[in-house]
Amino acid sequence: MLPDAVMQKAQQEMLDWNGTGMSVMEMSHRGPEYTKIAEKAEADLRELMGISDDYAVLFLQGGASLQFPMIPMNLLRGKKTADYLNTGAWSTKAIAEAKQFCQVNIVTDSTANHFTTIADPEQWSLSNDAAYVHYTPNETIHGLEFADIPDVGDIPLVADLSSTILSRPIDVSKFGMIYAGAQKNIGPAGLCIVIIRKDLLGDVLPGTPTMLNYKTHADNGSMFNTPATYSWYLAGLVFDWLKQQGGLEAMAELNQRKAAKLYAAIDGSDFYSNPVDIRYRSWMNVPFTLADDKLDKQFLQQAAEQNLLTLKGHRDLGGMRASIYNAMPEDGVDALINFMNEFERKNG
Amino acid sequence: MLPDAVMQKAQQEMLDWNGTGMSVMEMSHRGPEYTKIAEKAEADLRELMGISDDYAVLFLQGGASLQFPMIPMNLLRGKKTADYLNTGAWSTKAIAEAKQFCQVNIVTDSTANHFTTIADPEQWSLSNDAAYVHYTPNETIHGLEFADIPDVGDIPLVADLSSTILSRPIDVSKFGMIYAGAQKNIGPAGLCIVIIRKDLLGDVLPGTPTMLNYKTHADNGSMFNTPATYSWYLAGLVFDWLKQQGGLEAMAELNQRKAAKLYAAIDGSDFYSNPVDIRYRSWMNVPFTLADDKLDKQFLQQAAEQNLLTLKGHRDLGGMRASIYNAMPEDGVDALINFMNEFERKNG
Repeated sequence: MLPDAVMQKAQQEMLDWNGTGMSVMEMSHRGPEYTKIAEKAEADLRELMGISDDYAVLFLQGGASLQFPMIPMNLLRGKKTADYLNTGAWSTKAIAEAKQFCQVNIVTDSTANHFTTIADPEQWSLSNDAAYVHYTPNETIHGLEFADIPDVGDIPLVADLSSTILSRPIDVSKFGMIYAGAQKNIGPAGLCIVIIRKDLLGDVLPGTPTMLNYKTHADNGSMFNTPATYSWYLAGLVFDWLKQQGGLEAMAELNQRKAAKLYAAIDGSDFYSNPVDIRYRSWMNVPFTLADDKLDKQFLQQAAEQNLLTLKGHRDLGGMRASIYNAMPEDGVDALINFMNEFERKNG
Repeated sequence: MLPDAVMQKAQQEMLDWNGTGMSVMEMSHRGPEYTKIAEKAEADLRELMGISDDYAVLFLQGGASLQFPMIPMNLLRGKKTADYLNTGAWSTKAIAEAKQFCQVNIVTDSTANHFTTIADPEQWSLSNDAAYVHYTPNETIHGLEFADIPDVGDIPLVADLSSTILSRPIDVSKFGMIYAGAQKNIGPAGLCIVIIRKDLLGDVLPGTPTMLNYKTHADNGSMFNTPATYSWYLAGLVFDWLKQQGGLEAMAELNQRKAAKLYAAIDGSDFYSNPVDIRYRSWMNVPFTLADDKLDKQFLQQAAEQNLLTLKGHRDLGGMRASIYNAMPEDGVDALINFMNEFERKNG
């Protein structure tokens, strides 16, 4: 989902960007117009997230899934082991891919509790010689989210922020690397943003393709080859919109309020339920089930009639899932809650 | 460059695709609406190019540059050597990357003639045990293009068709694999199309990331992870437009006429020149120089005033370069020729 204002601006500028007579899609990525667009997007992202010059900001392709192998290829730097926290489907995927390249030590594993809670840090087993620690701050399928950034000492912390980036302020300086597929909380599919500490660049595993070496992209301003120009431009429009909304503090307030409302509606009813430990409930993805799952189909159908779309839960979990990313306005959440109440009244 | 009709349709549909109230950018890539878009694009491409069911058609990310490592990783299949033809900057890049993964045998090398001609096949040195033969049918910087598909017997032939795909009919059955970054002759950056014989899939080098295994994408309809949905949609609009134009036979006729006109204007003048062997001149990229390169800047400036843009030659070569891809209408070429004649009259 993209903010309406962003979509309208994109539509308006589609055939003629800024009086140039050119569409952004038709610009050379090395030309002066596109350079301006690309640089402004990076500057706005740095401003929004408070990213210092110690970090490179990269605009890549291939989604978070291509980061899964790139992370060990780039960040092992002579070490043999990496630490991974397993708190859901995305961490599980990252772990499976990392195992092709190194020994993976599982720091904590929420599989046994069906990804409904996260063990306390005292119970974690961090290794002594890990090259890095990887975790997924928010898991989209089970709606499980870390409340705080894990403290892993001096070992570089790597986070898949695909589903929470820009939803609230975050202290980037606590991370070795942050990555985020853009299609959840930024907007356009086909773009992946990587924020990486510059001192971690350049020491890759033998056999790492040039395109999978972060240094290649850092040294070339993400223009070693043609980037996903239009998605980068759209991301820039979203960054600009976020600044106009009051930045990440304002988004945090709004997102927390949206999530709180929806969980209150679920918890206040015997008809709906969410199984996640209240300390680790996601602000972004709210899975819930109906007391009688034979009503699921009817629920989805009637919701769709009210233009409440994509509420079907992930196929691994069933039930429902509301994804209330940045671009979802508060009245969208209100409409969902009203519909849920109404549906319960009729069927409860 | 994208066809005007395609851009207008994209703009018109941007906020509401086909009465769904949804933008293509906001659709889930697994939803029924997007599935329809994706499948139609593939079907139209198969129809346009005459691609049989023996081939998988993949819609990937990362551009042609990510194909450079993927090709040896996927196509060596236990062999140690690959054959590469070097006819320009793009083949040179493909070769450099392949050398990380295998022994590269250079079949023919146009470096010494500054990429202005291609040696006759009798002078080529194909190896006996190559896993595949790679070449670049059209080199965009030097404007050097093969007139025919090389005959390499039973060894899979691999072609970087980024700059010529869809410009004319091509016998796909002669290839093991064709790949094409979409941003030259299809349209949207951020998409790379791969057409690969299915029997070549699945036997990858140890350590090949899941995302770089063609089989991953073939087995999942290019939806192993979120694809570049909007670029895929735009590509589909271009395929549809090409069908309306009469398909690739009609494009071939038009493109040949456009190129012939422009070369005739260059050859008919002492003021302009193109150094490429007349047998291997590109239909798509026409580099040319002015007799006096001190006039280059003035030429570019005055051309820009007439909305004739991006004529500056590649930084490695200097001079001018006209890229006359599918989306460039014939009257665009006519306008360029008129401008060139006028400029010569004033400055010749």
